[in-house]
Amino acid sequence: MRRMTTSKVDDFVNSVNFDQQGLVPAIAQQTGSGEVLMLAWMSEDSLRITFASGDATYYSRSRRQLWRKGETSGNTQRVVAVHLDCDGDSVLLEVDQVGPACHTGLRSCFDTRVESLDA
Amino acid sequence: MRRMTTSKVDDFVNSVNFDQQGLVPAIAQQTGSGEVLMLAWMSEDSLRITFASGDATYYSRSRRQLWRKGETSGNTQRVVAVHLDCDGDSVLLEVDQVGPACHTGLRSCFDTRVESLDA
Repeated sequence: MRRMTTSKVDDFVNSVNFDQQGLVPAIAQQTGSGEVLMLAWMSEDSLRITFASGDATYYSRSRRQLWRKGETSGNTQRVVAVHLDCDGDSVLLEVDQVGPACHTGLRSCFDTRVESLDA
Repeated sequence: MRRMTTSKVDDFVNSVNFDQQGLVPAIAQQTGSGEVLMLAWMSEDSLRITFASGDATYYSRSRRQLWRKGETSGNTQRVVAVHLDCDGDSVLLEVDQVGPACHTGLRSCFDTRVESLDA
């Protein structure tokens, strides 16, 4: 992994508009296939740890703690790139997902329920 | 567009865990290419209107009103499918985006700033 300089990380983090809980929604997308795997939340700390380690690290709102994706399941996400949107209030992580992303065992958390609108 | 029955729409909407503001984050993804275009927010009403019309309709938190994507710019999103994630607290819209998704003129709102972690 190519390390980002501290000033570059600071600059990125300072560009994020965290919400009142200090969080920003983060989309994880499989690099290459483009499949959207999940949406989770990041705090400033989780974003800094993600940049430093290259492993997607989120903030669990239910457990109120940092959570390295796959820390118990082994289904980690190696981060290839981090995108910030035009308003600075959402993040897109391009990742290489090991195994299924979803705790249900499905590849994507969005595979659970799908309604097609076009015939 | 294939119409969903009212009971199917009700069932979907009732499965969504809206937050305290009555909103759920919604990811818009280009069908086919898989490109992630933007993240916006949906209320129950915006979700129902999206199902009924087939045009992605969001809730603008800054303007505090429903917002049919492209209503002023013409850059509409025809919705192909709606996914709900395993926890019911985020939505993925597969869309066919007309023109750029981003108000900056870029195709995706996530094209603005990208930091690569892998060399």
